Amino acid sequence: MTNPSQPKRIGLTIGEPAGVGPELALRVASDWNGADSLCLIGDENVLQDVARRLHLPCPPTIAASALGDHRSGVAIVSLPIESDDAVSPGRWTAATGEASYRWVCEAVRWTMEGSLGAIVTGPIQKEAWHAAGVTYPGHTELIADLTGTRNFRMMLTAPEITCVLVTIHVPLADVAEMLTVDEIYQTIRLADAASSRSLRRPANVVVLGLNPHAGENGLFSHQEEENIIAPAIRRAAADGIRVTGPISPDTAFTAMRRRETDVYVCMYHDQGLIPLKALAFDDAVNVTLGLPIVRTSVDHGTAMDIAWQGTASDRSLRAATRMAIDLA
Amino acid sequence: MTNPSQPKRIGLTIGEPAGVGPELALRVASDWNGADSLCLIGDENVLQDVARRLHLPCPPTIAASALGDHRSGVAIVSLPIESDDAVSPGRWTAATGEASYRWVCEAVRWTMEGSLGAIVTGPIQKEAWHAAGVTYPGHTELIADLTGTRNFRMMLTAPEITCVLVTIHVPLADVAEMLTVDEIYQTIRLADAASSRSLRRPANVVVLGLNPHAGENGLFSHQEEENIIAPAIRRAAADGIRVTGPISPDTAFTAMRRRETDVYVCMYHDQGLIPLKALAFDDAVNVTLGLPIVRTSVDHGTAMDIAWQGTASDRSLRAATRMAIDLA
Repeated sequence: MTNPSQPKRIGLTIGEPAGVGPELALRVASDWNGADSLCLIGDENVLQDVARRLHLPCPPTIAASALGDHRSGVAIVSLPIESDDAVSPGRWTAATGEASYRWVCEAVRWTMEGSLGAIVTGPIQKEAWHAAGVTYPGHTELIADLTGTRNFRMMLTAPEITCVLVTIHVPLADVAEMLTVDEIYQTIRLADAASSRSLRRPANVVVLGLNPHAGENGLFSHQEEENIIAPAIRRAAADGIRVTGPISPDTAFTAMRRRETDVYVCMYHDQGLIPLKALAFDDAVNVTLGLPIVRTSVDHGTAMDIAWQGTASDRSLRAATRMAIDLA
Repeated sequence: MTNPSQPKRIGLTIGEPAGVGPELALRVASDWNGADSLCLIGDENVLQDVARRLHLPCPPTIAASALGDHRSGVAIVSLPIESDDAVSPGRWTAATGEASYRWVCEAVRWTMEGSLGAIVTGPIQKEAWHAAGVTYPGHTELIADLTGTRNFRMMLTAPEITCVLVTIHVPLADVAEMLTVDEIYQTIRLADAASSRSLRRPANVVVLGLNPHAGENGLFSHQEEENIIAPAIRRAAADGIRVTGPISPDTAFTAMRRRETDVYVCMYHDQGLIPLKALAFDDAVNVTLGLPIVRTSVDHGTAMDIAWQGTASDRSLRAATRMAIDLA
């Protein structure tokens, strides 16, 4: 819950300008509750162009140096795209990639300095980052690097289901050898801390097995459940965390199980993201745990094929913004 | 759809007698539509005991030699458990494991001989099979062996989603090295044949990638998508199959994608079973593709903790029985 006596200042990077990020940012800004401050970080020409096309109001632009004085309502902090060509919907370039990368870097700097209370990131186009020479797999790894964070985790949360991932953007064949007792233990701790704080009570943490049927006692495994996952669970339980597992992954996400679970600790990307997106595609929020700053994100891509048409769902960005205010 | 002019004879093995299999079999028998024949294969003493406890009707017992003459309605073919002790709910033994194994073996023999048109299998307890010296990982592998089938696949189907698995009961770490172009191609062919026959039109087959984001062009993969999965898809497409992929696993099962997909080809057990059980736990049916006989199964376990109490859901067994009639 937001404390109305302490207004928050949220920075929202608009993401890839040729994607759906600008229109979603403008939609969230258009009915902003004035108690907190929302600053859209992007290119004001793009935002004005999209606002005109979609008949949305466009917030006023303020200087970056005035950010610390912006107390409520909405504003744009404009960091222009370095190109002579206007941006067209659906057409990313090296220049749009460079700009969307720079917006995240500046937003992180301003948050570390205290000018922003939290960051919400719009969707970026990875190919555009690559064309601009940026090699990070995604926002999460970039922001961890910018804040000097080694021990971070991706949490995906929606009303139906919340997952924290032990491993993220790695080949499936490499997951088993990357799992360690300590990595899983640290993930359980981060998952418990985030969920317990948000629920205001000790969270029920459920840890998944790696293999079919959680290995069926070594029958379909290399004993990862017994040798790696179970010791991490015991260590977390000894800290007083309410944690159970390792449970069979395939039955972990039934409706009955979900009612008993506050947060799932998943061994690999698709173990958590497949059920999350199957159950809650539009509502999910991506939160990076372990950072010294608050960062939430949409849980979808740039949707280039429908960019600037006003048809993309803003539910994930609205949820990400609400969560950033709660956590700030 | 069942053709009423051709009644079918379905054999239903009751599974582990100390589990929920007997009561579910009796419930399906209790309101059986008389046009087809349903033969419960198990121990008549157990079935009578469970029927008495739960106030369910118990079908008459017929001799196995009379199976070929049973044209409609319900009957028991009794193959007694070889033990002096009565079965108790929730307590499997080596004797119950041996019996549930023998029931499947006999049902397969009778189906191969033509006395049964299809088999539906109730849930077995793997530990009980092991205690009886039976080492098959499950029904699927046993029935494949009994029918001399090398090229078989597990299909899980529910109104919301249908998946066919390339690999089943293997450690996650071994999945990548087990994938071959031919295994994936054969899976696509079996998935297409089963779905197209059931839909009476060419099915839309969607093949998943192995890695996060389907490898993101080799960024998070060992190029399994490019080198193994894509060539299998091209080969199947050249046969005229309506097949697309490899697609990103995490967004494959959103509601929008599911509407466009008749059957998913999944690389490993939990890639298919996690979304299936999250979306359709009670309704799913397990069908073994590639066998010379029709075999369907429930998609749940023995639920020992609620055995013989009359509270287990019979939806999966009813769906499995309906599908066996359709396919017989």
